[in-house]
Amino acid sequence: MKNECKECNIKTKKRSDEEKSNYIKRLNRIEGQIRGINKMVSDDRYCDDILIQISASVSALKSLGQELLENHMKTCMIDDINNKNYSSIDEIIELFRRLS
Amino acid sequence: MKNECKECNIKTKKRSDEEKSNYIKRLNRIEGQIRGINKMVSDDRYCDDILIQISASVSALKSLGQELLENHMKTCMIDDINNKNYSSIDEIIELFRRLS
Amino acid sequence: MKNECKECNIKTKKRSDEEKSNYIKRLNRIEGQIRGINKMVSDDRYCDDILIQISASVSALKSLGQELLENHMKTCMIDDINNKNYSSIDEIIELFRRLS
Amino acid sequence: MKNECKECNIKTKKRSDEEKSNYIKRLNRIEGQIRGINKMVSDDRYCDDILIQISASVSALKSLGQELLENHMKTCMIDDINNKNYSSIDEIIELFRRLS
Repeated sequence: MKNECKECNIKTKKRSDEEKSNYIKRLNRIEGQIRGINKMVSDDRYCDDILIQISASVSALKSLGQELLENHMKTCMIDDINNKNYSSIDEIIELFRRLS
Repeated sequence: MKNECKECNIKTKKRSDEEKSNYIKRLNRIEGQIRGINKMVSDDRYCDDILIQISASVSALKSLGQELLENHMKTCMIDDINNKNYSSIDEIIELFRRLS
Repeated sequence: MKNECKECNIKTKKRSDEEKSNYIKRLNRIEGQIRGINKMVSDDRYCDDILIQISASVSALKSLGQELLENHMKTCMIDDINNKNYSSIDEIIELFRRLS
Repeated sequence: MKNECKECNIKTKKRSDEEKSNYIKRLNRIEGQIRGINKMVSDDRYCDDILIQISASVSALKSLGQELLENHMKTCMIDDINNKNYSSIDEIIELFRRLS
C-alpha cells in the first residue's frame, strides 16, 4: 500500500475515496474553526469563549489523528509486520505519545 | 477588564496590542498548517508524515490555549476573586481538563 | 490556612477530617491496586490485563490529584490572591500540566 | 508466548527474568511513593508538596505502562498479526487512550 518515489523519496499511500473525503471534510471544518477563533481574538472576545473553541479544535484534530493512526495500524503496520519490518512499531508508539 | 454587552450578552476583554497580534500570528500559522495537512491528504501522502503534522498542529493549538488560560488566570480570575466571584475557578478547572 | 515551620521550612495546611479521610481511603485503595499489579507481574499475567489495572490506577491517582488541586485553588490560592501573592498561580499552572 | 488456561480462562505471558524484575522493582518503588503521599496527607502537608509527589507517581506509572505496552506490541501483537488475529490492534488503541 505504501509507495516511495525513487526521485523525491516522498512516501504515499492510496486511501479509499470515502476515507479521503472524510478526512478532507473534517480538515475543512477545522480550518473554519481556526479562522473563527482568529476572528474572536480580533473582536476582543472573552477568554473563556475563545478557550472553549480552542479546546473543541484540539479535540477535533486529535480525533482525526487517532482515526488516521488506527487506519495506519490496520493497513500499513500489518503489511510491515508481514514483511518482517518492525520499525514502524516504534514510529507508532512515538505518534501515540505525540497525539495524546 | 471583562465587559458584557447588555444587548447581546457577548462578553469581551480588552487585550494589549502585543498580546492580540501574538495570538493572531500564531492562529494564522496554525490555519496554514491545517491547509497543508489537507493538501497532504489530497496528495495521498503517507500516514506517518500526515500524523507528524497533525501532532505539530495539536501542540501549537494547546500551547496557544495554555498561554491564553495563563493570562486569563493572571487578569480576569484575579479580578473575579477580588470581587468575591469564585465561579471562574470552576470554569478554569474545566478548561484545563479540556486543554490537556 | 497555610503554615510554614520556621525551624524546618515544612509547609502545612489544615484540612477538614472529612477531606483528609477521603484522601487517605483513596490512597489506601490505590496502594492495594499497585500491590495487585505487582502480583500480576509475578504471576506472569497477560499484558492487556496488567495494562488495564495500570490505567485504572493512573486514573485514580489523577482524579485524586485534580480534586486536591481544585481544593487548593478554592482555599490557598484565594488566600494568596487576597494577600496580593500571585506566585501560586504559576505553580498551579505547572501542576495542571504535570497532572494532565 | 500468550497462554490461556482452559480451566480458569486466565491468560498468561512468559517474560524474561530481567523484564519481570525491572517491573517489580519499579512497582515496589511506586508502592512506596503512594505510602509516602498517604503519610503527607496524615501530616497535613501543604497541597503543592503533595501534588508534586502525586504527579511523580502518575508519571512513573504511565511510563511503566507505556514500556509494557511497547513490549506487548513487539511480542504478542506481532504473534497475533502473524496468526491473522487482528483484534489485538483495537485493544492496543484502547490501551493507548487509557494510558495517555
